[in-house]
Amino acid sequence: MAVQTAESTTESAAPSVDLGPAAALSCRECGHRVPLGPVFACQECFGPLEIAYDFSAHDTEELRRRIEAGPANIWRYAPLLPVPADVATKPNINPGWTPLVRADNLARELGVTGGLYVKDDSGNPTHSFKDRVVAQALEAARAFGFTTLSCSSTGNLAGAVGAAAARAGLRSCVFIPHDLEQGKVVMAAVYGGELVGIEGSYDDVNRFCSELIGDPAGEGWGFVNVNLRPYYAEGSKTLAYEICEQLGWRLPDQIVVPIASGSQLTKIDKGLRELIELGLVEDRPYKIFGAQAEGCSPVSAAYKAGHDVVRPQKPKTIAKSLAIGNPADGPYVLDIARRTGGAVEDVTDEQIVEAIRLLARTEGIFAETAGGVTVGVTRKLIGSGALDPALTTVVLNTGDGLKTLDAVADTGLTATIRPNLDSFREAGLA
Amino acid sequence: MAVQTAESTTESAAPSVDLGPAAALSCRECGHRVPLGPVFACQECFGPLEIAYDFSAHDTEELRRRIEAGPANIWRYAPLLPVPADVATKPNINPGWTPLVRADNLARELGVTGGLYVKDDSGNPTHSFKDRVVAQALEAARAFGFTTLSCSSTGNLAGAVGAAAARAGLRSCVFIPHDLEQGKVVMAAVYGGELVGIEGSYDDVNRFCSELIGDPAGEGWGFVNVNLRPYYAEGSKTLAYEICEQLGWRLPDQIVVPIASGSQLTKIDKGLRELIELGLVEDRPYKIFGAQAEGCSPVSAAYKAGHDVVRPQKPKTIAKSLAIGNPADGPYVLDIARRTGGAVEDVTDEQIVEAIRLLARTEGIFAETAGGVTVGVTRKLIGSGALDPALTTVVLNTGDGLKTLDAVADTGLTATIRPNLDSFREAGLA
Repeated sequence: MAVQTAESTTESAAPSVDLGPAAALSCRECGHRVPLGPVFACQECFGPLEIAYDFSAHDTEELRRRIEAGPANIWRYAPLLPVPADVATKPNINPGWTPLVRADNLARELGVTGGLYVKDDSGNPTHSFKDRVVAQALEAARAFGFTTLSCSSTGNLAGAVGAAAARAGLRSCVFIPHDLEQGKVVMAAVYGGELVGIEGSYDDVNRFCSELIGDPAGEGWGFVNVNLRPYYAEGSKTLAYEICEQLGWRLPDQIVVPIASGSQLTKIDKGLRELIELGLVEDRPYKIFGAQAEGCSPVSAAYKAGHDVVRPQKPKTIAKSLAIGNPADGPYVLDIARRTGGAVEDVTDEQIVEAIRLLARTEGIFAETAGGVTVGVTRKLIGSGALDPALTTVVLNTGDGLKTLDAVADTGLTATIRPNLDSFREAGLA
Repeated sequence: MAVQTAESTTESAAPSVDLGPAAALSCRECGHRVPLGPVFACQECFGPLEIAYDFSAHDTEELRRRIEAGPANIWRYAPLLPVPADVATKPNINPGWTPLVRADNLARELGVTGGLYVKDDSGNPTHSFKDRVVAQALEAARAFGFTTLSCSSTGNLAGAVGAAAARAGLRSCVFIPHDLEQGKVVMAAVYGGELVGIEGSYDDVNRFCSELIGDPAGEGWGFVNVNLRPYYAEGSKTLAYEICEQLGWRLPDQIVVPIASGSQLTKIDKGLRELIELGLVEDRPYKIFGAQAEGCSPVSAAYKAGHDVVRPQKPKTIAKSLAIGNPADGPYVLDIARRTGGAVEDVTDEQIVEAIRLLARTEGIFAETAGGVTVGVTRKLIGSGALDPALTTVVLNTGDGLKTLDAVADTGLTATIRPNLDSFREAGLA
């Protein structure tokens, strides 16, 4: 079954790299196709490039059996990803197949009757969904002969790149603002790669990385979220695949996804559509909802104003892993939310913290601030009627509370007593 | 096939609780048997009670198929654990089936040629192996009608109990020394249970908990590591099961296990022996090695001195999750290390930190201090010739580096530069 077939036989006739079913790069704006390579922008229109696949070889039931017999990580979906068929034998951090938690306690609190699930990606090797995307970028880096894995980051991505490069035996060089909190520096530095502080803001770090890619000094460097971005981004499809397989090869009715650049949400939509086209799930409607923090809500603001374009904002929120003021995929997110009948909503920092506590208290899941955003937005969308509590709903938690302890730092002891029963009784604990 | 059959038909004729194949409690010292209940010490000799199973119903190949078709968590082994058959349908945090990482880079550094693996338990829901044992205690608490889950803790256990109780809808009440670091308090408190600070040392906390169990105020309370200890401890068997299944139903030749109370090591041995007796793995020799920090090495000291008893120590080490100066299972650990041809060894705090860095740099695994202990001891045992580098070796990492960031707090930036290529070249990074 062909989801997207290669238009040019030249591409498939002389492939320079083996990235499995990935056939070419295709511009999301103008459709122009180029061979697979470490490029990310269309030569014709400067639009973003994404992977075009040739899935024509797949028989639905044989594919399903192959997936189900695969490893308990994202490589069970190797036939649908831009990776070589033998990917599972290569040293990679093997993320994925994280729990889809049936959240009955949370459902009761939120009034959801149709089945509520939390896709908990804090179980990944470095405890965020970034391991999924970096794992793809690593395979692309190997395919293109890169010897250094790199990125700009302020947190989760730095650790994911450092860990993946260490496992694969590649050099890593991660760029961060020089004045990051010491804890975050430790988490990124412990893997032993180069960790370079840049005297400037995160924007300065990004600008410098773009400069480095164009310079001979950057030769042999794979920047996971720049020149490897088309491959990297595909990792988010695995969230869609896992959710459907864990639901028994069924689409959720509603799914709530955090928005940083917006790439994750667009790739989850892509993954769901692929499963439909491949016949692995029944073709029926699903709604995708986007979640932002009020302090960085450019997509939510555009959605509410009925705009097609996103006006950049200067982020100011505790949800730092979502704090991208000028999200590259913002317009695509707006399109998907509207097309599927979803919505985009935002919550305040206070509501984020409340939601982190709610999720921990009801389900024993300690989410990072991004998880507080999705749970908080879910609650708000139920309140407004945009999200139907009678339908099956999946909420994403993309990171780990241990990495954003500051958000709940005022959590403390419920009592302090002396070590005897009288003191215990006096405290009203008996 | 009967591994351990119930001696008394009374026990199995009138079971008051359904805990699957668990048939009775049996004293590890005198063999006296009592019905399943929330008791932990033998009435006859005060020896520790452990679970006696009736595995007589199992056909080997049918059992293997059932396990392999089970969920990607510890409940795939439900037929071998003290839990009801429908355990996977109950709200529990469902730990386990964590990665067994083929550690070829680390093997090269250590000179291991026979295959080196790291069993990485940082992937559990609250990022330590404690989720395995607490998950068992939770099922026992439900079976005995307890409504509060409790423990004394200084770290990992508090989070595991808080999370499990939240998921199950039980009350939790965790006791900790009142002056713990704020970060640890937050990690334990976020799940919304009672978190009680005790004015005193950890020993005072423990003494108070024992007092509470004997008092009417403690009625309905399940202390996971006290009155539920026989059930709790069995959770460590799942490490043995998973390692063997992940090796393709094969025993490792050598396994390196951290020692706190020593319970984990004894239960891993029990798990391996069960797999042999059930016919799930070939019966051939394996060696179990115990690992301690020099600053709390009572078992290692006894092993080296050729003693059968363990002399208590006052702990002083950065490996706080292993800092039990008077380990209850110390004599059993000595027995197992000697019987299997293993050894017990210890490493300094400096060697622990070096080993944390080594594991992170070579395999992208960021271990807590306990993981530094096992990797450091593995290196030392290879150096001394006690561990054979030509044999298949599994090293346990039982926790997450994010919880013991202090150990590597001096890890930092490798360079600081201005955001331009000249500065980049001057720093020698090109």
